[in-house]
Amino acid sequence: MCMLLMVIGMQAQENIGVNPDKITSPVIHDDGTVSLYLYAPNAKKVTLSASFLGHETDMKRDAQGLWSYTTSPLTGELYTYYYNVDGMRINDPNNIYMIRDIAWYSNYFLIDGPISENYFVREVKHGTVAKVWYPSPTLKMAQRRMTVYLPAGYQEGNERYPVLYLLHGSGGDENAWSELGRATQIADNLIAQGKAKKMIIVMPNGNGTQEAMPGEYPNAMYKPRGMMPHSFDGTIENSFVKDVVSYVDSHFRTKADKHHRAVAGLSMGGLHSLWISCNNPDEFDYVGLFSAAISMSQKDSPYKYIYENMDEKLAKQFSKKPALYYIAIGDKDFLYKANKDFRAKLDKAGYPYIYKESDGGHEWRNWRKYLNDFLPRLF
Amino acid sequence: MCMLLMVIGMQAQENIGVNPDKITSPVIHDDGTVSLYLYAPNAKKVTLSASFLGHETDMKRDAQGLWSYTTSPLTGELYTYYYNVDGMRINDPNNIYMIRDIAWYSNYFLIDGPISENYFVREVKHGTVAKVWYPSPTLKMAQRRMTVYLPAGYQEGNERYPVLYLLHGSGGDENAWSELGRATQIADNLIAQGKAKKMIIVMPNGNGTQEAMPGEYPNAMYKPRGMMPHSFDGTIENSFVKDVVSYVDSHFRTKADKHHRAVAGLSMGGLHSLWISCNNPDEFDYVGLFSAAISMSQKDSPYKYIYENMDEKLAKQFSKKPALYYIAIGDKDFLYKANKDFRAKLDKAGYPYIYKESDGGHEWRNWRKYLNDFLPRLF
Repeated sequence: MCMLLMVIGMQAQENIGVNPDKITSPVIHDDGTVSLYLYAPNAKKVTLSASFLGHETDMKRDAQGLWSYTTSPLTGELYTYYYNVDGMRINDPNNIYMIRDIAWYSNYFLIDGPISENYFVREVKHGTVAKVWYPSPTLKMAQRRMTVYLPAGYQEGNERYPVLYLLHGSGGDENAWSELGRATQIADNLIAQGKAKKMIIVMPNGNGTQEAMPGEYPNAMYKPRGMMPHSFDGTIENSFVKDVVSYVDSHFRTKADKHHRAVAGLSMGGLHSLWISCNNPDEFDYVGLFSAAISMSQKDSPYKYIYENMDEKLAKQFSKKPALYYIAIGDKDFLYKANKDFRAKLDKAGYPYIYKESDGGHEWRNWRKYLNDFLPRLF
Repeated sequence: MCMLLMVIGMQAQENIGVNPDKITSPVIHDDGTVSLYLYAPNAKKVTLSASFLGHETDMKRDAQGLWSYTTSPLTGELYTYYYNVDGMRINDPNNIYMIRDIAWYSNYFLIDGPISENYFVREVKHGTVAKVWYPSPTLKMAQRRMTVYLPAGYQEGNERYPVLYLLHGSGGDENAWSELGRATQIADNLIAQGKAKKMIIVMPNGNGTQEAMPGEYPNAMYKPRGMMPHSFDGTIENSFVKDVVSYVDSHFRTKADKHHRAVAGLSMGGLHSLWISCNNPDEFDYVGLFSAAISMSQKDSPYKYIYENMDEKLAKQFSKKPALYYIAIGDKDFLYKANKDFRAKLDKAGYPYIYKESDGGHEWRNWRKYLNDFLPRLF
């Protein structure tokens, strides 16, 4: 089961210099080690940057100009990497599996194991993933794009489903959770195992000035630069129930009440989830804050009311006894202290919540883990 | 309107060697010329391969190690390119817009003009694009993946729509037409202008042993190698109406009759369209063969009946007077003669068809053009 990237055709070591197309990289060995290759006969120095390494590491050149690196045995996880050739960052040209984070692509591969078992596409029934355009009058946009996951079986019947609104972080977009986050695979697998309820998952765009991800709206083929305007200033939270939830409830077969509605997000999306839920205490019974950017709200905005009176709003929200208030963060996350302070506030007021602390920092390997732990607790 | 890739932040020429992240590439100038950049201070030779060039062309190095190339003014088109650094093929690390053709990614950019005007995302109502899994009993697969385009307005009413089945070529998959083919944008724009009818477009997977594109089915993160088994041997044509059409008619609001059903495809998909339509003369009233691989059917198969008795099958099909039989090919296509011979057969029998001959060969710029010309003729 470790041989997850199939080695097809000839071995990488053969025919080098004759046909670089025959290189296979990565090669996942039966013992869990992984070999990476790059054919760069004229390069002076090639290094590897990877999520399984603590630091940029030299690759080794053979006589024919094939550079390689073989890992120690890796535990189950989704790993990302890229190369640096004489100072120039590039992707592995022999690995078509890439994911974008803001302006950069990394290659990735999967190793099977307890943490990653639900990140794989398995022989289970798959849900439908749709790119849907909805009107956003509050943001004065005729159309905005969201990713909608409909569980397997949705197409065949008249059942109504609960809804999770799953929000991305700063620099991300409506594709982030379904690509970097493996949300589709995690939901498919947990639902097939009976560990999570069948649910609709709505992944909207959380950048207040974007209609959609780069390239998917008019005149938008730009190079992304990270944080977008009107993303931390209440704009999204103010519009959320009016534009997003009302569209979803009127266009999909939802159970359109608080007890069947969850909101969760990572980083900026955690900030949004906190404030969307406490400003609408009758709308969401389940809340998930993953590495939430609690301290980053900007109050110089027409929508600053969103971020005011936290204590009163939390008091009202918790007086209604939310079914789940879930907080998770890595012990090296730069937002650790902000989350610790927020938990102290909840503790002082006696508000119940579930807290999960992982190792590591502000990174996708944690957000996938939190989602995998969070979905079975819903509905 | 030519400045379609926005130049954000600093010019490429500034800060080189200090912060390569600030490079913008490509830069589309107001006069229709395009500048491409690569920061590779240690490279000895950098060349550019591009759809707007006839041959691999040297790029020019400046004193700081920034390589560049500026085109002459380009006409409206979707252009692809990649770099070759000292013999190593790479993508432009500053351009996140990439499309995959089998095992290789190329970067792309768009120039506006008469040919490409419908390739852009415009301020028009957008349809929904969904990845849908359907059972394929004839192929003995519990699930296969198709891309489904639902026209704007589908979500809001009870209208029924005609359906175009749009088939990819060898080495492609269910993502090919919506990515390389810009089918989503072409349909959105033609429908919004009133030039094409509102229709559902179904883009299935045409490889007989694949459940889905690489990476989207179990144990499938392999490096694609081109032609797949059981793609040219009648397997797909035999299963098509039984598995694909019956699922679509029972799960979407279609007008489920011959007069509201079209089948078209490029290369291998053109072969499939020819045989699907003539083996099912009561099912498809509109047929499109784009650079069809007419001569490539393999008759050593349990489904060889599909490819037998062409004359009799065409006679029956044309006796029912199809609403449209459309053939298009480039004058340098390697399949030109096979299509010429096929047209001679139709001519001899007196069967009417529309024929469009373009310049160029077996390439996506032609298939996008044919689709843009074909959609307004349907329904």
